[in-house]
Amino acid sequence: MSVGVAVLGSTGSIGRSTLQVLSRQRGRFRVVAITGHSNTDLLTQQAAEWKPAFVGLVNGVGKGDEGRGKGTACLVEAATHPDVKIVVNGIVGAAGLEATLAALRAGKRVALANKETLVMAGELVAQAAREGGGEIVPVDSEHSAVLQCVAGRQPAELARLILTASGGPFRTWGPERVSRATVAEALKHPTWTMGKKITVDSATLVNKALEVIEAHFLFDVPYTRVDVVIHPQSVIHGFVEFVDGSVLAQVGFPTMELPILYALTYPDRVPDLGVRRFDPVAAGALTFEPVQPDRFPAYVIGREAARLGGTAPARFNAANEIAVQLFLEERIPFGRIAEIIERVLGVGSREPGAGASLQDVLAADAEARRLAGEAACS
Amino acid sequence: MSVGVAVLGSTGSIGRSTLQVLSRQRGRFRVVAITGHSNTDLLTQQAAEWKPAFVGLVNGVGKGDEGRGKGTACLVEAATHPDVKIVVNGIVGAAGLEATLAALRAGKRVALANKETLVMAGELVAQAAREGGGEIVPVDSEHSAVLQCVAGRQPAELARLILTASGGPFRTWGPERVSRATVAEALKHPTWTMGKKITVDSATLVNKALEVIEAHFLFDVPYTRVDVVIHPQSVIHGFVEFVDGSVLAQVGFPTMELPILYALTYPDRVPDLGVRRFDPVAAGALTFEPVQPDRFPAYVIGREAARLGGTAPARFNAANEIAVQLFLEERIPFGRIAEIIERVLGVGSREPGAGASLQDVLAADAEARRLAGEAACS
Repeated sequence: MSVGVAVLGSTGSIGRSTLQVLSRQRGRFRVVAITGHSNTDLLTQQAAEWKPAFVGLVNGVGKGDEGRGKGTACLVEAATHPDVKIVVNGIVGAAGLEATLAALRAGKRVALANKETLVMAGELVAQAAREGGGEIVPVDSEHSAVLQCVAGRQPAELARLILTASGGPFRTWGPERVSRATVAEALKHPTWTMGKKITVDSATLVNKALEVIEAHFLFDVPYTRVDVVIHPQSVIHGFVEFVDGSVLAQVGFPTMELPILYALTYPDRVPDLGVRRFDPVAAGALTFEPVQPDRFPAYVIGREAARLGGTAPARFNAANEIAVQLFLEERIPFGRIAEIIERVLGVGSREPGAGASLQDVLAADAEARRLAGEAACS
Repeated sequence: MSVGVAVLGSTGSIGRSTLQVLSRQRGRFRVVAITGHSNTDLLTQQAAEWKPAFVGLVNGVGKGDEGRGKGTACLVEAATHPDVKIVVNGIVGAAGLEATLAALRAGKRVALANKETLVMAGELVAQAAREGGGEIVPVDSEHSAVLQCVAGRQPAELARLILTASGGPFRTWGPERVSRATVAEALKHPTWTMGKKITVDSATLVNKALEVIEAHFLFDVPYTRVDVVIHPQSVIHGFVEFVDGSVLAQVGFPTMELPILYALTYPDRVPDLGVRRFDPVAAGALTFEPVQPDRFPAYVIGREAARLGGTAPARFNAANEIAVQLFLEERIPFGRIAEIIERVLGVGSREPGAGASLQDVLAADAEARRLAGEAACS
């Protein structure tokens, strides 16, 4: 019997890669549900090819076929469909959180590419998984790398995680030049082809701060033991240091298809010839540099938000979403992204500590978005 | 209860490193037996420190204390001591084979640094392990790397192994200059401090040919799926490619203490602060090059011997042992090592295929040694 899969965000970058992977693994998996944001043409095309039982359109404008879900509620509907065993959550932004929680409570595996899920509500997610018997398997290449290195070992054997960061397009630029970088420059990622939001997050290294927070929750490792190193070639995706001093790493040419497939088959592996075979000689020299704090101020703020805990990571994430959106609309310069985030985190209301409810988190998210908008105009 | 360990070759490089590791893990392990080749001063000192139940001297000259084993028989005695659970086999050369077989038949774990065991008699070793319930855990850094990457996974998930080789001191030399290299030049290994024999084997890359054969037997992978890449920094010790295209690697600054500890605790890991912590930034640029066949003719012959199977690997190993000894005694130039091995493999008697007995193997070993001596004089 093939395993039923829901693909949330099927018309986005992760969703399209997921369907690409599934097209090579049709015997093992079948697509039960897909949801798209607003690309109705592609969604219709995917529905025709895969014939899923459920198709959802988040930004529906009332002209969809009968039997199709509409609005953000369709995400939960797809994620909890009874024939679905694995939910690939490729939604960008906070909208993905509710679907993750619902899927975990319904006992599903969530193959998670939605960073906001763990950043906003890491503790709530862990609780939902415990209650419903669901589990999270990361799709991010860095967290997939860590999972592949620790697979089958006890958490007590982990000493330290080292996530790699390409350093983005501004790695070698001076702070002055970076602060005036254009949208076109920020979108020129040296090694990965991804969506716009995440590409800008790679340029600010906010992406890596979010991944540090995710890693903390995914692998139950304190922040003091999650390090980041700049690795411009993006060939080594993560290191895991064990208590005996040994280090494992996951290695490969950049592709999201590999972590997606692993999240579907974990802890097993299945034959797949879809990704470019690794060749160390072709990889060239692999280099590593420390993160320079003055080049990546938003990353430093993100780590501080992580350390604060409570709703600070949610506010960090929300402020960044607004700031990046304003930057992509060319309404603020690149250098203001970090400034806006810092302003929002500095002026926010008191943090609830551990035990923040979903309401607390969503309120903090909303407040941070409002404050970020205000900060941008002042 | 602590686990009893026998250290065969306790006065050699692997043996001393093993006792170094054990000195940090006294609660978990105790030394039940040690054997040395001829360094009686160090053996006496080790016996005084560790107070093992059994002390053996291979090259004993009749003046040992009562209760001490003598001659090569002491290796089997130490390896099968009833209080021993793990035998660290750090013997150089063919003498280690019999002890491995005896330990496996007695149901012990053999932490194997003795290359000859698997090269000479890979099939016999597998049979002894099956019959007696023993197991082999590799101590070589390359095979330990592979084991750490595959630990817990099914053999069917392995697609390819890539062993790394430093390339030795002659990696960038022309063939002409290499053929006239001196003993002092051959012993200047760029990254590892090891015994003389194995250091010369690193310069010829015979070491890597032997490791390819070991990997074949240890991980049950056909030779066509065991590759070698030159990696001058010796920071990545091995890669494992899985059937889905993902690759794991084991990484660290060169030290034998880590693979030794892992062989003792496998599949678990225990806290140990004895090895230098890995730091990717301090590691510098990691580079990879293909093996140039014309620079390493003995490696090419070794792979051919592997492909032939039967007793060819044993003859390759024996011819190399004699040739290296002659080189270290400055009786032949470096370039003749490969020539002698090639001559021996070319003129030897017919190969028994699969199913060679220990007698076949030992006869092939003896014949190859005789032929190598003759080839050197002609």
